[in-house]
Amino acid sequence: MKYVKTILMLVAVWAAGLTTVRAETRALVLQTDFGTKDGAVAAMRGVAFGVSARLPIFDLSHENTPYDIWEAAYRLNQTAAFWPGGTVFVSVVDPGVGTERKSVVLKTKSGHFFVGPDNGSWTLVAESLGVEAVRQIDETRHRRAGPERSYTFHGRDIYAFVGARLAAGVVTFEEIGPELEAAVVTLPYEKARVEGGVAIGTIPALDFQYGNVWTNIDEGTFAKLSPKFGDVFTVTIAKDGKRVFSGEVPYVKTFGDVAEEKPLVYLNSLLNVAFALNMGDFAKTHGVASGAAWSVKIKKKN
Amino acid sequence: MKYVKTILMLVAVWAAGLTTVRAETRALVLQTDFGTKDGAVAAMRGVAFGVSARLPIFDLSHENTPYDIWEAAYRLNQTAAFWPGGTVFVSVVDPGVGTERKSVVLKTKSGHFFVGPDNGSWTLVAESLGVEAVRQIDETRHRRAGPERSYTFHGRDIYAFVGARLAAGVVTFEEIGPELEAAVVTLPYEKARVEGGVAIGTIPALDFQYGNVWTNIDEGTFAKLSPKFGDVFTVTIAKDGKRVFSGEVPYVKTFGDVAEEKPLVYLNSLLNVAFALNMGDFAKTHGVASGAAWSVKIKKKN
Amino acid sequence: MKYVKTILMLVAVWAAGLTTVRAETRALVLQTDFGTKDGAVAAMRGVAFGVSARLPIFDLSHENTPYDIWEAAYRLNQTAAFWPGGTVFVSVVDPGVGTERKSVVLKTKSGHFFVGPDNGSWTLVAESLGVEAVRQIDETRHRRAGPERSYTFHGRDIYAFVGARLAAGVVTFEEIGPELEAAVVTLPYEKARVEGGVAIGTIPALDFQYGNVWTNIDEGTFAKLSPKFGDVFTVTIAKDGKRVFSGEVPYVKTFGDVAEEKPLVYLNSLLNVAFALNMGDFAKTHGVASGAAWSVKIKKKN
Repeated sequence: MKYVKTILMLVAVWAAGLTTVRAETRALVLQTDFGTKDGAVAAMRGVAFGVSARLPIFDLSHENTPYDIWEAAYRLNQTAAFWPGGTVFVSVVDPGVGTERKSVVLKTKSGHFFVGPDNGSWTLVAESLGVEAVRQIDETRHRRAGPERSYTFHGRDIYAFVGARLAAGVVTFEEIGPELEAAVVTLPYEKARVEGGVAIGTIPALDFQYGNVWTNIDEGTFAKLSPKFGDVFTVTIAKDGKRVFSGEVPYVKTFGDVAEEKPLVYLNSLLNVAFALNMGDFAKTHGVASGAAWSVKIKKKN
Repeated sequence: MKYVKTILMLVAVWAAGLTTVRAETRALVLQTDFGTKDGAVAAMRGVAFGVSARLPIFDLSHENTPYDIWEAAYRLNQTAAFWPGGTVFVSVVDPGVGTERKSVVLKTKSGHFFVGPDNGSWTLVAESLGVEAVRQIDETRHRRAGPERSYTFHGRDIYAFVGARLAAGVVTFEEIGPELEAAVVTLPYEKARVEGGVAIGTIPALDFQYGNVWTNIDEGTFAKLSPKFGDVFTVTIAKDGKRVFSGEVPYVKTFGDVAEEKPLVYLNSLLNVAFALNMGDFAKTHGVASGAAWSVKIKKKN
Repeated sequence: MKYVKTILMLVAVWAAGLTTVRAETRALVLQTDFGTKDGAVAAMRGVAFGVSARLPIFDLSHENTPYDIWEAAYRLNQTAAFWPGGTVFVSVVDPGVGTERKSVVLKTKSGHFFVGPDNGSWTLVAESLGVEAVRQIDETRHRRAGPERSYTFHGRDIYAFVGARLAAGVVTFEEIGPELEAAVVTLPYEKARVEGGVAIGTIPALDFQYGNVWTNIDEGTFAKLSPKFGDVFTVTIAKDGKRVFSGEVPYVKTFGDVAEEKPLVYLNSLLNVAFALNMGDFAKTHGVASGAAWSVKIKKKN
């Protein structure tokens, strides 16, 4: 019996260890505009690793255009839903570091967490994944210890630290700090719509690696035009209301359905309407970029 | 005895858990031409992490020249042999996404797995590591679940998903889909040879970070010229048969064996013949690039 | 009792397994100048993963300016202190590969390890973290096995291999090779100082992603000027003694304390004096770069 008790105790210790391991199987995913040539991201990784050596740490991207909050918001939305619930995203595109914007953790209805400045970065995930709760980070309690502290590097000293502790189960969401109103700062943007048989939208981003042009016209909005593969659409792209591209373009299932260098309409990886040249660069060829100045109209050809 | 049984059961559970952990110690290695500024790679990582939170996920590179299948084939061959058998490579350089090319998993005689389109990406690893078996991915069974599916992003919806499940031991190679002929699509390329004391080859890639020029003349072919460190070789580089560089260059063990900015012949990290300027950029200095148009001749100076 | 012994044995095996896992919770952090487009870094990762499938492998950066040892030294110093003691850094910026420079492992007083060529890369971490001991890598014993060996890729064949084995606990620091004098090769550089109320320093690096100018004037040196937030300083930046920028700039806590595009003095993430334009690019706007030719003077305005 003496042995048995010892063994049971050992098994209990082991079980506790196992539980710890399980609690650490949430991922931490980092997004910044720091670039990868600098050491800043590696310092953030070190802080997170110091919280838990078992924490899976990944990168979304660190090549966000400096200060471009919209792009950060778009990348989070392009990515988050493909990670399991519980995943903790740290996003540091923070032109207002040290100013009044709040440092928060957003929990979405999907169970994902977003850690960083509440400056508009959560605009799109708040909409697509739903706001469950928002808490302000209590910086007096949740800040990396150690002498090398700065006033300006919250990404390393607060966000990576808090995000890692949340992902590793060292702190709970409730312990982060006071609960705020269940809302986040949002950037204004024009939503897609259909008017008189014409789908109207904007160009939130380019798929710049290939020069494809992505719109915010989602599958549901596009469906109101009753598109079928092979249908030809009249596409108009304008900047500040001035026409930049106009043409008749077929809606196809995949790029190879048109000849090389020919234009096509397709649903991109987010199931939004997009334009491309097969094996070519639509954006460069036609001088198209992204942003609030750009608008798109698409209607089925008679 | 009652305790003992309980304990034995617990130990069995623990042992099962341990086995699972062991099965997950294969790595997943990702290569794409998506770039790292975009969110596409992070979506693939999320899908793979969702398959197993314990899966070691690595990058080969995501900066492959867009649509350049040859470069993808070269990078796989430059890398795969340095990973343990069992490693699963997902390679998505896929200009024909959605067209007739098959989605396959190649198992090499070395025990490595290669997941992606059978479009020539396996050309060099098939040759160097040997084709053990090829299976076509049954896309009706092996496709990420969930609403956000697209017609065009097989890298995320099929390849990352299948690769992760294979690496994590969720599915076996045999369960991937029907076995095909033990062969892959290959890109044509000219092999190195010796004719009349002259080694002849091509320039499959540049070591562009330093401007070194890499040939496909392997150590064995070069050995037929009986090279010794210190020997001087006559090197000729031509594009479409027209001479671009010609010179007498010493064969050395290491860069520091010649003065700065002086040319040298050496065996590169793949043990192929290569040309460099010590602390300089051979390719830029002499206007040399890589590809099918480029040929190299090297013979020992009398 | 028979059962009990069996169980105790199993528990012992499990405990041993646990110990192994614990020994593997040191991280391996890689820095090179290879770029991320090439396959060289992925080959290093593969070698390290082959040593231990449980080893946490991270990147510092692979975009170090080719051959720039100073930059490598600076990045290590910017990063290392934010990783736990025991972390193993492999740094391969090695213009002298194959020449006389020694391959070493530096252990600092902080418990960090640095693996690579002793060519000046350790200049700054040796100073900031303190030299505990230096050992020369016995390359006859510590070199990756296997046929694909080269004379020139020590990063893959020696450093990644040794670093991984040290991090994974396969070898101890004492087993690396013979102990050398407790000193490393250092690059000369001018230290910050105060003369007659003027703080004088250099520009060791730019925070190029944002165009901020970083000096080597540390918080302690700066403190001799008794700076208070809101104080205005006369800043002079010169190249080879010739003035490039001169202006009166406020010392602020954070960027938002000045108007957009206005200059500011702040303490950067390493607590060194730095100059920036709020939402702008100080370096580009004023034509400032980094390196030994650049000097900085800063004094409090009367």
